Amino acid sequence: MEISQLGEFGLIRHLTKDLKVQNESTRKGVGDDCAVIQYAAGQRTLVSTDLLMEGVHFDLIYTPLKHLGYKAVQVNLSDIYAMGGTPRQITVSLALSKRFSVEDIETLYDGMRLACEQHGVDLVGGDTTSSLTGMAISITVLGEAREEDIVYRNGAKPTDLICVSGNLGAAYMGLQLLEREKAVYYQQRHEAKEAGNNPDSVDFQPDFTGKEYILERQLKPEARRDIIERLRQAGIRPTSMMDISDGLSSELAHICTQSNTGCRIYEERIPLDYQTAVMAEELNMNVTTCALNGGEDYELLFTVPLSENDRVSQLQDIKVIGYMTEENQGRAMIARDGGEFELKAQGWNPLQ
Amino acid sequence: MEISQLGEFGLIRHLTKDLKVQNESTRKGVGDDCAVIQYAAGQRTLVSTDLLMEGVHFDLIYTPLKHLGYKAVQVNLSDIYAMGGTPRQITVSLALSKRFSVEDIETLYDGMRLACEQHGVDLVGGDTTSSLTGMAISITVLGEAREEDIVYRNGAKPTDLICVSGNLGAAYMGLQLLEREKAVYYQQRHEAKEAGNNPDSVDFQPDFTGKEYILERQLKPEARRDIIERLRQAGIRPTSMMDISDGLSSELAHICTQSNTGCRIYEERIPLDYQTAVMAEELNMNVTTCALNGGEDYELLFTVPLSENDRVSQLQDIKVIGYMTEENQGRAMIARDGGEFELKAQGWNPLQ
Repeated sequence: MEISQLGEFGLIRHLTKDLKVQNESTRKGVGDDCAVIQYAAGQRTLVSTDLLMEGVHFDLIYTPLKHLGYKAVQVNLSDIYAMGGTPRQITVSLALSKRFSVEDIETLYDGMRLACEQHGVDLVGGDTTSSLTGMAISITVLGEAREEDIVYRNGAKPTDLICVSGNLGAAYMGLQLLEREKAVYYQQRHEAKEAGNNPDSVDFQPDFTGKEYILERQLKPEARRDIIERLRQAGIRPTSMMDISDGLSSELAHICTQSNTGCRIYEERIPLDYQTAVMAEELNMNVTTCALNGGEDYELLFTVPLSENDRVSQLQDIKVIGYMTEENQGRAMIARDGGEFELKAQGWNPLQ
Repeated sequence: MEISQLGEFGLIRHLTKDLKVQNESTRKGVGDDCAVIQYAAGQRTLVSTDLLMEGVHFDLIYTPLKHLGYKAVQVNLSDIYAMGGTPRQITVSLALSKRFSVEDIETLYDGMRLACEQHGVDLVGGDTTSSLTGMAISITVLGEAREEDIVYRNGAKPTDLICVSGNLGAAYMGLQLLEREKAVYYQQRHEAKEAGNNPDSVDFQPDFTGKEYILERQLKPEARRDIIERLRQAGIRPTSMMDISDGLSSELAHICTQSNTGCRIYEERIPLDYQTAVMAEELNMNVTTCALNGGEDYELLFTVPLSENDRVSQLQDIKVIGYMTEENQGRAMIARDGGEFELKAQGWNPLQ
């Protein structure tokens, strides 16, 4: 069905008709000039927003719409967890070109709904409009936190331990794999054309065997609520925290700058998955560089007081990779061979 | 200066370095994973969001960037006022193509800052990224309201008076004027080219004499905080309210649908500005049709109990245009000649 048949309000009604409110704090969802929210007395409200542009943040050649919707929500929720909060509501704005059908947008919404359900989040509003060219997705997330649970980027102190959750570089390797297979596909189409055949007749089967994990990390990231809960259960309060969206080196630089500290991390301690290492080998890339500068891992980077060493080291899926230093000691990485390098923030720059 | 020289974080720092927080409720603005907000105990949080796409919502040929920034903020604030609330914070996400310089974006921000200052609103976060094609602007606004002050769309009752602020159709006429002058400009460029001259040498002076008001209504709309304050001072509580962004007929249909009522409005009572009427005449358009279906007026449409007739009629810049009826009486307009027409929602559909 063409979107123009439903119109803006028809499409919104169609997409939101089955939404069930999960949070008491959602007093009014979709359907008025504003959504109305009420958190319990004393709670702080957290807000974060992301704008995803087709061709810059996602490539619909290899990104299924359901995954895109799921990911667009997860990356926003990740920002709330990275402050120590609980996400509760999102608004979703979409700009769509004429090439999308109502069914396409339903599929995109299915992915968003799935992410919302998993995290107990309500979709409370948004805007749906057309685009002359690519798709744009803008999501704003609201969450709540007690004042004493909020963790900023500026609270790290020298000697604090630097911790990361999960493993790094896998999403970036997944992206490289998808880009490689895309290039092969276009090459086959080109060859078919040269041979006088219809390029649409190319029956291309991308080879993802043994690479499922890195693909999933790229296409279906998960906001790490579990890590926040684990820390809370253990009674460990990070001194600084953020999520790793642009690469470890870039995020660590933010924490150092805002906390007025230096840092010292150990290459051998950076958590890597086996598939990340294999893929880097295949592509002749340095796996540490991928882990430091590859983006979209959506793992948590945080610091804890040195006194928490024993307790934090026992927590599942969290790894201590170094410690904070005085600011004048700079930002350093100790390589596997013992050599010391200056850490440079080379994360993804969306404006270059 | 090219944006890529500063990079994302450099650009954000540059644009936000002079921001002063105006609200006590803004506990943390730009610079972390989330902004942190705390309204006074018992207050409700209102949220609304808009996504503006170049070529769909604005044309940079005739929209100065400062005006664009100003308008993008005002149209969001309008949604908070339309619920009876007070806007306090916004987040701003921008997607920019390479043709914009740092100075361009500063100018856009100047307009946004001006709107924020006028309404006491803090810019607390956002996202800045690139776009392969046109510009995208996504703004989310947060505001607060006491529960008893919030006005929804579903509270209108039969016999309630239908009121509008200001006048209608002017922004649409301003748009028609801009489009007409744009067409003349392109025609002159075309003719220069045909004559073998450089089209860039065309010294085009658009003719806006006597049309300043409708231009301003299109390029520089104002969210009607004054109307909300006036109603509050007079102790008048609307039974339903929304802002007129897609045209009176469309918005009135929303209120009727959500309140389960019909309505009856009088053509002769629809407030029009002189310039709107003159422009409609010039373009051979029916001025009532423009007032009913032209969008972007950002005036307030609301209903009050019949018993408020005397008081609301005395308020400056507010006009009673009709009354609500039982749902089965439909949605009617009484024309100047006494004829009765069915009101059809023909407002702007961004998806057609």
